Amino acid sequence: MVLGIDIGGTNTKFGLVNTKGEIVYQSSLPTTDFAAPADLLKRIHQLIQELEPELNGVGIGAPNANFARGTIEYAPNLSWTGIIPVTKIASEIFNVPSRITNDANAAAVGEKLFGAAKNMDDFIVITLGTGVGAGIFANGQLITGKNGFAGELGHVTVIPDGRMHHSTGLKGSLESYASATGIVETVNEFLKMTDKTSILRELKTKPLTTKLIFEAANNGDEIAKQTLDYTAEILGLALANFALFSAPEAIILFGGVTKGSDNFFEKVKSEMEKNLIIVFRDCIPVIKSELPESDAAILGAAALVWKNNT
Amino acid sequence: MVLGIDIGGTNTKFGLVNTKGEIVYQSSLPTTDFAAPADLLKRIHQLIQELEPELNGVGIGAPNANFARGTIEYAPNLSWTGIIPVTKIASEIFNVPSRITNDANAAAVGEKLFGAAKNMDDFIVITLGTGVGAGIFANGQLITGKNGFAGELGHVTVIPDGRMHHSTGLKGSLESYASATGIVETVNEFLKMTDKTSILRELKTKPLTTKLIFEAANNGDEIAKQTLDYTAEILGLALANFALFSAPEAIILFGGVTKGSDNFFEKVKSEMEKNLIIVFRDCIPVIKSELPESDAAILGAAALVWKNNT
Repeated sequence: MVLGIDIGGTNTKFGLVNTKGEIVYQSSLPTTDFAAPADLLKRIHQLIQELEPELNGVGIGAPNANFARGTIEYAPNLSWTGIIPVTKIASEIFNVPSRITNDANAAAVGEKLFGAAKNMDDFIVITLGTGVGAGIFANGQLITGKNGFAGELGHVTVIPDGRMHHSTGLKGSLESYASATGIVETVNEFLKMTDKTSILRELKTKPLTTKLIFEAANNGDEIAKQTLDYTAEILGLALANFALFSAPEAIILFGGVTKGSDNFFEKVKSEMEKNLIIVFRDCIPVIKSELPESDAAILGAAALVWKNNT
Repeated sequence: MVLGIDIGGTNTKFGLVNTKGEIVYQSSLPTTDFAAPADLLKRIHQLIQELEPELNGVGIGAPNANFARGTIEYAPNLSWTGIIPVTKIASEIFNVPSRITNDANAAAVGEKLFGAAKNMDDFIVITLGTGVGAGIFANGQLITGKNGFAGELGHVTVIPDGRMHHSTGLKGSLESYASATGIVETVNEFLKMTDKTSILRELKTKPLTTKLIFEAANNGDEIAKQTLDYTAEILGLALANFALFSAPEAIILFGGVTKGSDNFFEKVKSEMEKNLIIVFRDCIPVIKSELPESDAAILGAAALVWKNNT
């Protein structure tokens, strides 16, 4: 039995995975409730202990994780700062070997082993959540790069001198527009720019979520529709740039934002096509992850323990 | 003996390479003099025949080449249109097996076998010439992608709704700013915007070249300096985006434009650094190709015949 943990900016999902790749137990905790990763891991340990599993290892997916060093380093979307030796901490708490990789890499490994990419050698998984990340396979292998941080595609610049990212300080990065946080920021900008009536204006007293924005768009709200069109333009353009880099067989979108609306999804695809040269057009499908969101990340993280080379 | 041919937008370089990887003869022809690739290859055949070499194969590097299909397809920087079965034509003319790949991929293979990337598993070669191309290695292997066209990085969008590319129709692509043609276009834009004196204004009657622009900048010409700073900003930003994708050990710049001035080169590097997140800063050197320009491309193209899998 292996414990797979997917640490996200908002929630941490974890599950016990057997050797057949089945998740036999899973649960989640709010990441933001824990002041340090050790606290989070101790709590998971408590919960798992009650099940008395025969644990062989712990695999962790997390933003800005470095596989080679076993660390999370300066993660813009976590409140934990600096360089954190996570595998060392996890091995001490669980008393088994532990491995860590980028949460998006874990999702990509999950897609390759159990999901939409089972028969693909070249594909890109884009995770759209609190942050934006990517896991990239080329020639059948996960790309980690020299520094172990390949696929940090949330931080590519799409709008030079564009919106400031609250924690990286970079301007106009994909994440500052296409993450859940970025989409909410766009709504607030658009609401300020006009007097148009919008259900989102009335909801402004409680925190906006992408779920509420997608609902509003599906109900015909103009500001919500404008926001999603704008987001789709930027995301589509970024996907075209990624496609030109590694010429994937498909791009797989993963995470809550992808479930919002079919209109949004179609718009992302058409915007990608608009930004491609002829030989790339109409041959790179953009698809939604086939796996339940939590499953791919947990399975991918767990797979780290079985496959030492990812 | 293998014949390596590097077809560029302006010139085609070719050379005979022995099994030690030495170029024993080389020459070049203006690509634009030939209405069809068959004419160009027949002329090369004529010239080579005089040397009576024992030819085992022909390796070709060309823009928009597809390794799997042996074709050049819709190349924006060549006057030859549509899909051209180049390896078929070359095999008939030379009566030996022929292989083709993207010119930038050939340069990358050249760098890996004989140049700056000899000991690297992860690197990106950016070719700056009439067009802008890229050859990418990850996990020690050339990335060609599902459609065989990976690394078309000249066509990524860096300035949304920016300058129209004369042949792709895309707006704001890297190539429309950082190619030789793009740099000349920037000079002309800047000259129109002001009345400032500039040696480039006086030279305007004859066609401007990047060589003249770099010379003018080195002599303190303001318009030339402004042009190169602007180019460096855009190229540096694009390199940061590429670095975030594959986390290379180094980025190798290849082609005439890289030789212009040390100021330009330093500015490209500092602009790249400005657009990176912390974990990518100060660890990805941008270096100039160590190989004579023609050599890497010819050697890389020739290597196609020896290494069937690139």
